[in-house]
Amino acid sequence: MAGTSPAMTKMATGFSFKILAQDGAARRGEIETPRGKIRTPAFMPVGTAATVKAMFPDQVRQAGADIILGNTYHLMLRPGAERIAALGGLHKFMGWPYPILTDSGGYQVMSLSSLRKIDEKSVTFRSHLDGAMFELSPERAIEIQNLLGADIVMQLDECIRLPAPENEVERAMRLSLRWAERSKRAFEGAAPGRALFGIVQGGTVPMLRNISARELVQMGFSGYAIGGLAVGEPQEVMLATIEETMLELPSDKPRYLMGVGEPDDILAAVERGIDMFDCVLPTRAGRHALAYTRFGKVNLKNARHADNPKPLDEESACPASRDYSRAYLHHLVKANEILGAMLLTWANIAYYQELMQDIREAIAAGRLKDFAAETRENWNREPR
Amino acid sequence: MAGTSPAMTKMATGFSFKILAQDGAARRGEIETPRGKIRTPAFMPVGTAATVKAMFPDQVRQAGADIILGNTYHLMLRPGAERIAALGGLHKFMGWPYPILTDSGGYQVMSLSSLRKIDEKSVTFRSHLDGAMFELSPERAIEIQNLLGADIVMQLDECIRLPAPENEVERAMRLSLRWAERSKRAFEGAAPGRALFGIVQGGTVPMLRNISARELVQMGFSGYAIGGLAVGEPQEVMLATIEETMLELPSDKPRYLMGVGEPDDILAAVERGIDMFDCVLPTRAGRHALAYTRFGKVNLKNARHADNPKPLDEESACPASRDYSRAYLHHLVKANEILGAMLLTWANIAYYQELMQDIREAIAAGRLKDFAAETRENWNREPR
Repeated sequence: MAGTSPAMTKMATGFSFKILAQDGAARRGEIETPRGKIRTPAFMPVGTAATVKAMFPDQVRQAGADIILGNTYHLMLRPGAERIAALGGLHKFMGWPYPILTDSGGYQVMSLSSLRKIDEKSVTFRSHLDGAMFELSPERAIEIQNLLGADIVMQLDECIRLPAPENEVERAMRLSLRWAERSKRAFEGAAPGRALFGIVQGGTVPMLRNISARELVQMGFSGYAIGGLAVGEPQEVMLATIEETMLELPSDKPRYLMGVGEPDDILAAVERGIDMFDCVLPTRAGRHALAYTRFGKVNLKNARHADNPKPLDEESACPASRDYSRAYLHHLVKANEILGAMLLTWANIAYYQELMQDIREAIAAGRLKDFAAETRENWNREPR
Repeated sequence: MAGTSPAMTKMATGFSFKILAQDGAARRGEIETPRGKIRTPAFMPVGTAATVKAMFPDQVRQAGADIILGNTYHLMLRPGAERIAALGGLHKFMGWPYPILTDSGGYQVMSLSSLRKIDEKSVTFRSHLDGAMFELSPERAIEIQNLLGADIVMQLDECIRLPAPENEVERAMRLSLRWAERSKRAFEGAAPGRALFGIVQGGTVPMLRNISARELVQMGFSGYAIGGLAVGEPQEVMLATIEETMLELPSDKPRYLMGVGEPDDILAAVERGIDMFDCVLPTRAGRHALAYTRFGKVNLKNARHADNPKPLDEESACPASRDYSRAYLHHLVKANEILGAMLLTWANIAYYQELMQDIREAIAAGRLKDFAAETRENWNREPR
């Protein structure tokens, strides 16, 4: 009976990915989820603590975001996954009815918590908020993400600090593979339409990346992420590692470069076949007086803006970039006004989404190379 | 020639006030300015530093505000009145094309700056931002407000701290009267359509209030403010002082109670014939986890909201009050998220504007007394 209802059929269609156009290694694609489509290449604004900081959900949507990212680590500490589940899930809690990807917490456990103890079973750590002890296992990371109601769920991995000795990189990579296997098993009962992504680790060692990718593909995931990059290595090392990893990833699954990045990193990674990105840069920069524009970065703290009646970009579709003078933005920043963070975050998220839309159109038109060259030239126009 | 153009005629109509309905001492009126109508009784959100804190200008408008207040003291220090004038005036600078009233700076000089020296000529003070010396005279206060482009300009007055000896209250009141005279002279060349209000002082001494009001009315202003109240005195003392002052104020000019206040203060003052209000309470409370609602104040810091799926007010027209659970607002407040301040400020400004709209309708319908009783009863419904 249930199988014949149209609603159930719709849900059952679940998660899928199709490539609509290719241009070199770059792909213009579409991910389908029960909560809506995700146009790729996609940039996911980061909604750490159940909010894309300093933005209303409808602004995030109108800026062009199809999907946002939520942080398992932050949400498990506060307000708690069980609480969010009891309140109807993360989508309802934060007023974002569209797709959400949640990370597994591995990265934040490394970067934020203290007194970590990692063993085969799990990672035990102290909350950076109140010192309370928490345990995160691959199974619990899946459970939390299912409680939150994430549309795309990430396996728990171990993210080590780089640089690190190669044997340490390999140890963490192999542990992450065993955790991938356990994550996959734990995910088996998840609601239909939800997807689990594996995470390739292996630092900047090509052979380790190859092994990690190959074994994950053998397990079979709905998508593959590249973790552990953009942690301070030069861009060329990051891009070489991406290229190496790509050799082992199937072309019919989405590829997600975690935590990246600057607009130029995104463009370069798209040129190498990446489909998904997330990064705190546009939101964090927006709270620190830095605007991303078509013509490069603008530091609104700089006194040279104090009398400038021009907006950030008079041709932008985003009111924050188009309708407020640099003089006003400078004033808000100097006066430490919340509206400064609101306007600059909005402008940055809108710019990132505009960039992704332009990238998607360039791929579809087979002119990504020209687009990339023009775009990089434009980024140098704004005075430093 | 110029006088015959319709645009000029429109400008020339300038500032006017008409009373549309009366209910006891309360008045439902309308102020006309070249930048638009102000429905009275009116509440003016405070836009201290050229921003109603944590709100976009279009939210302030959509919440129902016809006019906002700007602070001469803050704007003269940063970014500077001459700079704002060169950028096209305060309306353009902050993206608010509707009426703006600016205060004269007198109150903030008293409450924020250090090393004040007041003499007949002016007040000299150190900026609370960087210690720079500034001088503010009645003439300079008018000049600054004209540079900002304010639609309603306030005379400079001396605001003393209460309690104070009666002879000190009288001295400051008489100085404020002489400054009113000078303000009026300085305002003579102002652009057509702009209005100057005098400010009644005299502490809580009925006779001093009477003298102050009577002498201001003799000079003749477009409107009359009551300053120096809501500085810690009991509500009944404030209301008695208002009643006393009202005896001397003409009924055909708007009456503005400065810096007031709690919703109940506003309601009580409207019942005594006040037409205009401003206060930082709804915006400041919004940044400190406190929501004003039809059913009273809600402290979102309180742990009892942590699991509450209900919004602040499911029947509110404001999305911030209607569409987000108390659990979510509590979480945002606990996590110190900017969105918490954004949503609660929005909810509070919307509630204040809804209250003013309801007050206006009640006066028009001749049922203010019943409305006030019902409203006060409702304010006690929210658990403390």
